[in-house]
Amino acid sequence: MNFKKYVLFGLATAGMLLSFESCKPKGAGNAVSGNAAEKTYVAPGQYDEFYNFASGGFSGQLSVYGLPSGRLLRVIPVFSLDPEKGWGFSEETKPMLETSHGSVPWDDLHHVQLSKTDGDYDGRWVFANANNTPRIARIDLTTFRTAEILELPNSGGNHSSPFITENTEYVVAGTRFSVPMDGEGGDVPINTYKQNFRGTLSFVSVNKDNGNMELAFQIETPGVNYDLSRAGKGVSHGWFFFSTYNTEQANTLLEVNASKNDKDFVLAVNWKKAEEYLKAGKGKKVSNLKYVHNKYDDHTHTATSTLKTETIVLNAEELEGLCYYIPCPKSPHGVDVDPSGEYIVGSGKLAALIPVFSFSKIQKAIAGKQFEGEFGGIPVIKYEAALHGEVEKPGLGPLHTEFDGRGNAITSFFVSSELVKWNIKDLKILDRVPTFYSVGHLMIPGGDTKSPEGKYVVAYNKITKDRFLPTGPELAHSAQIYDISGDKMQLLLDFPTIGEPHYAQAVKAEKVKDRSLKIFKIEENKHPFFTKGENEARVERKGNDVHVYLTTIRSHFAPDNIEGIQQGDNVYFHVTNIEQDWDMPHGFAIKGARNGELLVLPGETQTLKWVPDRIGIFPFYCTDFCSALHQEMQGYIRVSKKGSNVPITYSLGTNQPVEKTN
Amino acid sequence: MNFKKYVLFGLATAGMLLSFESCKPKGAGNAVSGNAAEKTYVAPGQYDEFYNFASGGFSGQLSVYGLPSGRLLRVIPVFSLDPEKGWGFSEETKPMLETSHGSVPWDDLHHVQLSKTDGDYDGRWVFANANNTPRIARIDLTTFRTAEILELPNSGGNHSSPFITENTEYVVAGTRFSVPMDGEGGDVPINTYKQNFRGTLSFVSVNKDNGNMELAFQIETPGVNYDLSRAGKGVSHGWFFFSTYNTEQANTLLEVNASKNDKDFVLAVNWKKAEEYLKAGKGKKVSNLKYVHNKYDDHTHTATSTLKTETIVLNAEELEGLCYYIPCPKSPHGVDVDPSGEYIVGSGKLAALIPVFSFSKIQKAIAGKQFEGEFGGIPVIKYEAALHGEVEKPGLGPLHTEFDGRGNAITSFFVSSELVKWNIKDLKILDRVPTFYSVGHLMIPGGDTKSPEGKYVVAYNKITKDRFLPTGPELAHSAQIYDISGDKMQLLLDFPTIGEPHYAQAVKAEKVKDRSLKIFKIEENKHPFFTKGENEARVERKGNDVHVYLTTIRSHFAPDNIEGIQQGDNVYFHVTNIEQDWDMPHGFAIKGARNGELLVLPGETQTLKWVPDRIGIFPFYCTDFCSALHQEMQGYIRVSKKGSNVPITYSLGTNQPVEKTN
Repeated sequence: MNFKKYVLFGLATAGMLLSFESCKPKGAGNAVSGNAAEKTYVAPGQYDEFYNFASGGFSGQLSVYGLPSGRLLRVIPVFSLDPEKGWGFSEETKPMLETSHGSVPWDDLHHVQLSKTDGDYDGRWVFANANNTPRIARIDLTTFRTAEILELPNSGGNHSSPFITENTEYVVAGTRFSVPMDGEGGDVPINTYKQNFRGTLSFVSVNKDNGNMELAFQIETPGVNYDLSRAGKGVSHGWFFFSTYNTEQANTLLEVNASKNDKDFVLAVNWKKAEEYLKAGKGKKVSNLKYVHNKYDDHTHTATSTLKTETIVLNAEELEGLCYYIPCPKSPHGVDVDPSGEYIVGSGKLAALIPVFSFSKIQKAIAGKQFEGEFGGIPVIKYEAALHGEVEKPGLGPLHTEFDGRGNAITSFFVSSELVKWNIKDLKILDRVPTFYSVGHLMIPGGDTKSPEGKYVVAYNKITKDRFLPTGPELAHSAQIYDISGDKMQLLLDFPTIGEPHYAQAVKAEKVKDRSLKIFKIEENKHPFFTKGENEARVERKGNDVHVYLTTIRSHFAPDNIEGIQQGDNVYFHVTNIEQDWDMPHGFAIKGARNGELLVLPGETQTLKWVPDRIGIFPFYCTDFCSALHQEMQGYIRVSKKGSNVPITYSLGTNQPVEKTN
Repeated sequence: MNFKKYVLFGLATAGMLLSFESCKPKGAGNAVSGNAAEKTYVAPGQYDEFYNFASGGFSGQLSVYGLPSGRLLRVIPVFSLDPEKGWGFSEETKPMLETSHGSVPWDDLHHVQLSKTDGDYDGRWVFANANNTPRIARIDLTTFRTAEILELPNSGGNHSSPFITENTEYVVAGTRFSVPMDGEGGDVPINTYKQNFRGTLSFVSVNKDNGNMELAFQIETPGVNYDLSRAGKGVSHGWFFFSTYNTEQANTLLEVNASKNDKDFVLAVNWKKAEEYLKAGKGKKVSNLKYVHNKYDDHTHTATSTLKTETIVLNAEELEGLCYYIPCPKSPHGVDVDPSGEYIVGSGKLAALIPVFSFSKIQKAIAGKQFEGEFGGIPVIKYEAALHGEVEKPGLGPLHTEFDGRGNAITSFFVSSELVKWNIKDLKILDRVPTFYSVGHLMIPGGDTKSPEGKYVVAYNKITKDRFLPTGPELAHSAQIYDISGDKMQLLLDFPTIGEPHYAQAVKAEKVKDRSLKIFKIEENKHPFFTKGENEARVERKGNDVHVYLTTIRSHFAPDNIEGIQQGDNVYFHVTNIEQDWDMPHGFAIKGARNGELLVLPGETQTLKWVPDRIGIFPFYCTDFCSALHQEMQGYIRVSKKGSNVPITYSLGTNQPVEKTN
């Protein structure tokens, strides 16, 4: 076999990479479709056609855009503190950012996955991965809030995640950085990588009824870097495909040392087989771990963080038929499965071609033991035996592929900054358009389902430079929408994005919008410090803890003035928004508070903890403009010295103000 | 005088306010200009015409939009932690969020002001106010970063801010909530408001050369609520106008109790007179205060927080000719000055008309002592003596007014949800358009300057409801752009916004874009832990502190592996991005870190402090996709037990990796 033809770079060097940006697309310029303005314009009062859920990358959050307008509809806080929404600041949401080693205020959210039923989006949940401190989140599309976060043990960077099976049976997580297994003594020299560092693939089950996640099992493999993954579907249902790099098992200067092999691997995992092994008791129970499972409850309006200590590990080397490697040129990034499930596309970011593997040929190869050897005890299928064919000279730096539902694939090329459309069966290139600049992921609505909506493709670009008015050294990342309804792809619109969108998915608005909750029903509020109405508003001291049962309604707080607070008290403002109208939040903030603010939606209770560190008068007020008399929605707290004899007194903000002494 | 005609509500009640939302604009529907799509479409590769700087409200940040596209170009972190950009997480930026009582991770940014020279925007800086913990920030428009934050003593909620004079001589800050003066014993009963609570107006000087702010003086007034303010210009240069409410001096249920007086006041302040009094030594030096002044330096790439203890206070009651009250119906919110400086528009949010005051008549009234009495020792000018005229039956709930530069004013109406255009001189109403829904501030580019660009008006709406695809109970706030170049205002586009935009300003792109910095020059880097190149990269232990001098360049870290770290060490990663190309940031994150991540721009050094709390192998990696080999840009830290004898060892990530032992 001649490896040379698969290899773009003999040896990657920093110097060469520095020249990437000179590889701007040339010639085609910014040519746009003649009626691009109309095609992307969504008139006032009209809705966008698609919800586009885009990862926020290093923001740690999830962005929701409308397509085709590119308008940012909402940023959903997931893994990072959000001062705007009080996420991670309120007592109720703090547990959501807990990990097995304390609160972590940030993460790097890379990929999103809409839940699926029968291989198509069902509009119920979005899953997202934390790439730094390994976790998976589930966002509920009735509330557009993060409902659950599950930490992953035995992992070092959860990049190959949260890809899901076609009925949302499992969400997976492949460790990007192999590390020593938890609880087995991690204090080892880094240059013992090959002996001590292991790669794990976590399979997280999802409850069909309520979406709850559990770590079902992990598969232990040799130490490599796992990059991306996709579930099989249709004919390949029951299998999962993971791309790997650093099969050199290097542990320093990976830029060079992990770019040496001409081929790395796609790892094919038979998860139905894994289930059989589990049933047969072939899993090893490991119980000296620490990871947490955080859940938010929409009725108590509170989160809990539960420490877990056990997982079940299946050993890929020992359990025959569980895993197979497929050679894939070179440092494969994306591994994508076509709508039928038959074709698996590996995008080697340093490769000069795109291999397309055939699921049926893989099965035949396994049956016929067409192996070229093994890696870490796992059989390596012969490249040619698994191959459907190769897309030749497609572009430079292929990264990801999505599908248009008309038999075509579109692949993004980072180095040559373009999108290339090709036919899945005959592998012929049909069209190419430049991106500005250096596209990473791309997204076709439904592009990973069995029924893609091949109307648009969006390129999520890594370099922005001159695409928008300059904003100093730091620029927003950018996206570009193309019309792909015809034979030729046509650029429509550039739009800037929050953080760094890696992957994104889009779904027809109809599948989501009618699920969307407008208010939390106040009669369903089970918060332990819920205040049903102003007549229940009160202040209670319990030792050094002071609980303020506080209500908000346009446009006053009850109570609005509180005296008798002492320096060093733990003051808990339990704010219940007793409104029941859509889009009528109230905010709560107090001067100098270390816990930010609360943004409390109708029917909800949220708690701000405040520890006054000095005497004086502290104003508080509503932070979300709520009515013509919003500016009047305020109160004062009087803080006296520790041990002061000022009694707890408060004014009830009714139309007939009264003072109550506790 | 018949007060009745000025009064919309005899007594505001919660019940009545609840019905506001039924006051949706009717009839006009969503009619848009025929070519709205073309008018708002900015083709790929083209620039927007205006930078629109919008306050983030309860996000605490500043948003930069392009107009007319409505695209969000950048969120600039100001008063709140920003996990996306490491703002408040890096050691360098932590001091920017310090206050006199410790770090405060959040605030409520209400208003923005572009710096002015000769009454027009000069494109140098944006000022912004913190409404919760009183502060003013200055954002530098070369870097689009927050350069300075000044805390304000003697204040309780800084709402009436950061309005500026026509040569940026002063930025002002009027306390929204009157409070006892600092350092004079604030532990007083709240119902002693009239005796003990004071209103202060802070005048902050701005250095012409570098923008540096200093608290020049404060004016002490009776306790009321200050709402908004505007400087005089042209003929009224040297004066400042502040709107007040709660002249009832109520301290509970302000919704009712501060809505009783038929007129409150606009306070006219002669700041040139204040300067004379200061020179004459009439200010009282107060030196038992605490407030901080935080500055960020673009060469050391670090911030400092300096504690201040002194201010000079001028007493408005004692110093004749300094302050005058002008009666203004009813609970005035906006107070806006026309391009000539002659006309001052007071928008009483509960008033059924709009009074327009005349600066020359105010001067005549003062000269002729046409007073109707005094309030707290300050003369009250007769309403009619100050009045140019009234706009009759303009709409319900007037809030703010901007000017189109063609002799017209446009006023926003919260309750009747509309914009109304009227002629400044004859006070005749010329046009009205609905807003969706409940507009707060409005903005015309240059609308508060002497030369407005009357092409667009943007309505920043408080209620969103059905304007965009629903996103659960919490919706983005929204803005609407109207074409005002013709006689009739025409709705063009709705766009969602970050946080809650209160005020916004827009400036022609030409005035800002060429100032924008592309990189930080590495030869100008004066950071104390700067690493000039990979040959200087190193790890140094000093007791329990470990300093990692770390460089980033596509696509590796130097060093990339570090051993010899011990549990409980203070590890400082001083990351220098040695790139010098535009738009080539690198990020830095390590598994489980409590200080988020770093986003390091070319030529910059930033520091992440990490205290490992357990033994093991911790991966770190670049968080901003930088090249085709970005995924290879990683390293490992080995953490051993406290007292371990593993020596400090590190790999230098050059093309020829070496290990160095310290």
